[in-house]
Amino acid sequence: MDDRIREHAEVLVDWSARIEEGDDVVMAVSPGAHELAVATAKLLGERGANLVTTRASGEITRAYLRAHDDEFDPDPAHELALYENANVYLSLRGGHNTAATADVPAERRQAHARATEGVREARMDTDWVSTVHPTRSLAQQAGMAYEEYQEFVYNAVLRDWESLAEEMDRMKGLLDEGSEVRLVSANTDLTMSIEGRTAVNSCASVAYDSHNLPSGEVFTAPYDTSGHVEFDVPMTIHGKRVRDVSLTFEDGEVVEYDAAQNADVIGDVLDTDEGARRLGELGIGMNRGIDRYTDNILFDEKMGDTVHLALGRAYDANLPEGEAGNDSAVHVDLITSVGGDSRLEIDGEVVQRDGQFRWEDGFEN
Amino acid sequence: MDDRIREHAEVLVDWSARIEEGDDVVMAVSPGAHELAVATAKLLGERGANLVTTRASGEITRAYLRAHDDEFDPDPAHELALYENANVYLSLRGGHNTAATADVPAERRQAHARATEGVREARMDTDWVSTVHPTRSLAQQAGMAYEEYQEFVYNAVLRDWESLAEEMDRMKGLLDEGSEVRLVSANTDLTMSIEGRTAVNSCASVAYDSHNLPSGEVFTAPYDTSGHVEFDVPMTIHGKRVRDVSLTFEDGEVVEYDAAQNADVIGDVLDTDEGARRLGELGIGMNRGIDRYTDNILFDEKMGDTVHLALGRAYDANLPEGEAGNDSAVHVDLITSVGGDSRLEIDGEVVQRDGQFRWEDGFEN
Repeated sequence: MDDRIREHAEVLVDWSARIEEGDDVVMAVSPGAHELAVATAKLLGERGANLVTTRASGEITRAYLRAHDDEFDPDPAHELALYENANVYLSLRGGHNTAATADVPAERRQAHARATEGVREARMDTDWVSTVHPTRSLAQQAGMAYEEYQEFVYNAVLRDWESLAEEMDRMKGLLDEGSEVRLVSANTDLTMSIEGRTAVNSCASVAYDSHNLPSGEVFTAPYDTSGHVEFDVPMTIHGKRVRDVSLTFEDGEVVEYDAAQNADVIGDVLDTDEGARRLGELGIGMNRGIDRYTDNILFDEKMGDTVHLALGRAYDANLPEGEAGNDSAVHVDLITSVGGDSRLEIDGEVVQRDGQFRWEDGFEN
Repeated sequence: MDDRIREHAEVLVDWSARIEEGDDVVMAVSPGAHELAVATAKLLGERGANLVTTRASGEITRAYLRAHDDEFDPDPAHELALYENANVYLSLRGGHNTAATADVPAERRQAHARATEGVREARMDTDWVSTVHPTRSLAQQAGMAYEEYQEFVYNAVLRDWESLAEEMDRMKGLLDEGSEVRLVSANTDLTMSIEGRTAVNSCASVAYDSHNLPSGEVFTAPYDTSGHVEFDVPMTIHGKRVRDVSLTFEDGEVVEYDAAQNADVIGDVLDTDEGARRLGELGIGMNRGIDRYTDNILFDEKMGDTVHLALGRAYDANLPEGEAGNDSAVHVDLITSVGGDSRLEIDGEVVQRDGQFRWEDGFEN
């Protein structure tokens, strides 16, 4: 077995999920993630955890959902009981076809998701972690050769997470103390309030309330946005490729939008509801192991030298206890690179210039 | 998809497991059984059942068990809750290597089995069915080409179960009314009492308390055995090949044994405990779709024109309520062919001669 698979399993079990003796673990394995599952099972055995392995197959899901009608039993007892009694849920993704469920009608999918809301909540109440095993199918989606993609994934996953977490804590500290963020680059000059909001240090560990491996971003929930921003990282939104999205904000709301490709997709997003016209997230990508776009949000938004903003729903973790943030049915991330001629200011002080953070060598104030 | 896979799924869902709307189903899928799982999931969707899919991988189990120590938590809460809340358990077997767990120490395996006895009981309390998807690994074990093995499996599985169940019911009726069974062939003349015992019509359906697909045997629990029997079907017992086993019984107990190969294995079985020297089962193979030995007890003991006897434990289903049958830590099946010059008598009346049952054309009394 590739040593990197073993190391990936170690990061997953020890850094991300913090497995302890006696933990009741559900490990969901996609068809292409078998080797990572074997490496993970070995560590779960060593740690003395208890293991139930489920099969997360798009083809099985497709066959089941297409054959079913739109009336699903609410929260089946056996599935609910499994997750309500689990401490940890590990999702090992990586299939053989990213479009395996492409012909399941959206309404069917939504009806099933609504009926099993309680199951999903029970799963999210565990110390859950979602990660990706590099498969040929995912390499294809990223437009990369298989070995090239393996290197890409392991560069992103096999970080020195402890030291990255410390570095990200600096950024969190600056955001927590700050009142206003300003992002400036060639075609962007945007100002957001973050007063009273708490940043999350998302460093790929349940100990930090971070549930994706890889991760590597610090995010908060901005408001009162004004100015203009252009997103130069291409994205796939609702199945369509959008490029060079630009947004103009006044009093916290989008008042103008455009895109070089599929601008109507952005229009549809903005029309979802009132909250969809406001920002729900400002995220600062700090994982320098991710150095290219692969059209996979799990990686793209964590990329070093990028900042992302999400239209729509804000996360509770960023809000003072009891305070409601921006609410919406959508949360659509858009990414802009800040590696070149750019600066990120907090209360007038530059914290990142041309991609360099203020604590890094080469930072010019 | 091969039509036979769809038909296999239909037999499994409708004849064997009798799936109904709202059933909470756990489907355990071995790594090679994916296609059967997809076909089964489709039918579960059509029937309106609720599905949790688990992954039954020998390699994952091996990694986990080898890494774990000998102290296992008793009946992990999440696993127990899953099965306690399930109505149906479908085991779709068929891996890529029948020896996938060969290097797991036996004590480790036993320690785990002991600790999870409650989980196993909860699983057996459901309407469970175990079946096999033909894989290359199983073809290899059977010494057959892949396509040849597929035909073999589907011949065994895709029967007219309803009419076979009726035919088997005739045999059950004869055994239930009978007091004494005598088996006579070239080197065999054996007499057993079956007075007061109830035969089971094992026709591959939970409606008949039969949990294997394929099945196709009628079995009861004999006692007071006397005489001599030779088993001409080769078997693998405790990992060793045994051939031409012969047993001599007096007053219900084995007093002499021999075999043309690995006779010591039979000696070890007989020495296990007192019950291991007595019979626990007399089974009559009635599945004519199975026409050759494949060294897989799931198929071999159901084969038409064979009778099998098991040393050791008797099944409760054959015993009057509250009566204890032969007890032992082992239950070792041995098979003899009755297609040639042979007869099976119940209370002096021939019910099967040279392989023909008394209700079949060509039967000669």
